[in-house]
Amino acid sequence: MDERAIKDILEGVLKNVLSQMGGQTAGQPGCQPAYQPHAAPCCEGGDTPIPVELSARHVHLSEKDAIALFGAPLTHARDLSQPGQFLAKERVRLIGPKGVMDNVAVLGPSRGSSQVEISKTDARILGIDAPVRQSGDTKSTPGIILASQTGIVGLEEGVIIASRHIHMPPADAKKLCVADGDLVSVRVDGDRPLVLEDVLIRVNEQFKLAMHIDPDEGNSAGWNSKVNGRIISRKNGAVHGLCSH
Amino acid sequence: MDERAIKDILEGVLKNVLSQMGGQTAGQPGCQPAYQPHAAPCCEGGDTPIPVELSARHVHLSEKDAIALFGAPLTHARDLSQPGQFLAKERVRLIGPKGVMDNVAVLGPSRGSSQVEISKTDARILGIDAPVRQSGDTKSTPGIILASQTGIVGLEEGVIIASRHIHMPPADAKKLCVADGDLVSVRVDGDRPLVLEDVLIRVNEQFKLAMHIDPDEGNSAGWNSKVNGRIISRKNGAVHGLCSH
Repeated sequence: MDERAIKDILEGVLKNVLSQMGGQTAGQPGCQPAYQPHAAPCCEGGDTPIPVELSARHVHLSEKDAIALFGAPLTHARDLSQPGQFLAKERVRLIGPKGVMDNVAVLGPSRGSSQVEISKTDARILGIDAPVRQSGDTKSTPGIILASQTGIVGLEEGVIIASRHIHMPPADAKKLCVADGDLVSVRVDGDRPLVLEDVLIRVNEQFKLAMHIDPDEGNSAGWNSKVNGRIISRKNGAVHGLCSH
Repeated sequence: MDERAIKDILEGVLKNVLSQMGGQTAGQPGCQPAYQPHAAPCCEGGDTPIPVELSARHVHLSEKDAIALFGAPLTHARDLSQPGQFLAKERVRLIGPKGVMDNVAVLGPSRGSSQVEISKTDARILGIDAPVRQSGDTKSTPGIILASQTGIVGLEEGVIIASRHIHMPPADAKKLCVADGDLVSVRVDGDRPLVLEDVLIRVNEQFKLAMHIDPDEGNSAGWNSKVNGRIISRKNGAVHGLCSH
């Protein structure tokens, strides 16, 4: 075999490899992008759009706190997107050291302990230094005062800025190549597109596929109700894309 | 040359190419990430950290409006990060159809026409449907009423949500492989890291390197004054990274 033939083989093999890699560095083999997904298996359904819902400030109440505030358990106003969850007819006032917010939504059903979910903007207005936490993780978080027309309740703790997350049933988790507890990066295709990192995957039979972001994140993305998110990288390394196998 | 020798050459060349590409798809040649920088030349200084500054709500006034409100031109309180720009001692009240905001900063020096820069959150509170625009691009934007202790001015137009952007002098533009008017994606390394797309590059001899985001974006990123941004992709395709040439 002569040199020419070897060169032809080499060229063919390299062109093939480069084409499979999306031609990414064709002509510039000396440069690696510093921000890119890791070596990863392919995820065929990984590009599935995920509806993005804005989670405005709201309160979850224990049954005891609901009764202290309203004299009765919560009553159903309308269903929310996650099965079994509802918006209550009751509303509360949030009272912080620096400010007050009226007419705040209460979500049902009642939980074991009360929890207040606000944005960083709300936290500043109320004067409460709320940490970014996942729902339910309220240990050592700041307290707040809740008031209705007829009652008042002081929470020792429970005020959080809800961390961005995606609800999904197991079938969607399989399709999207993620597992409960994974952290992923999600591109949100609003008017001001952005990629949110460290988005927690929450998998449960009861969940419906939906990403929840707070109003600050929604404003930053130019959110509207038709906006979708797409997972662009995964902790476990799976990469969605054009699968040629 | 025998087959064995050819295979050795091929293997060596391929290993080299794959190593230069960061081993990205080693073992999974069938999958291309759907979200990745385009084929691009290398940018050696492309990873330079960019200080991120939060641009809270503020007003630029024409000299005429400043005099109508305060009876005199603006007075200097302190310098801002961009050379020649200053915070004025004067403050204004913003009056919208739904709400009012007091004690709003006025920046100097005076400009040809007045402009009000607010966040999406502010826009909702004021009841003004402000569009996301670059500074100075106020054509057909909503108006607002400005008030001081002694005067009042009605602006026909000029209320915007300032679009994220990066100020830099030409030397930094060269180092970062960008030009005036480019749109880039920037990773912001706050407590809640994210990537902001469509960030405008503004190059001017008078500028100092700084990225400006609004409070909604700052809250979404978990911003503090030590946060930096890094350009991760460019409209012109340049990719920063580990340059081996």
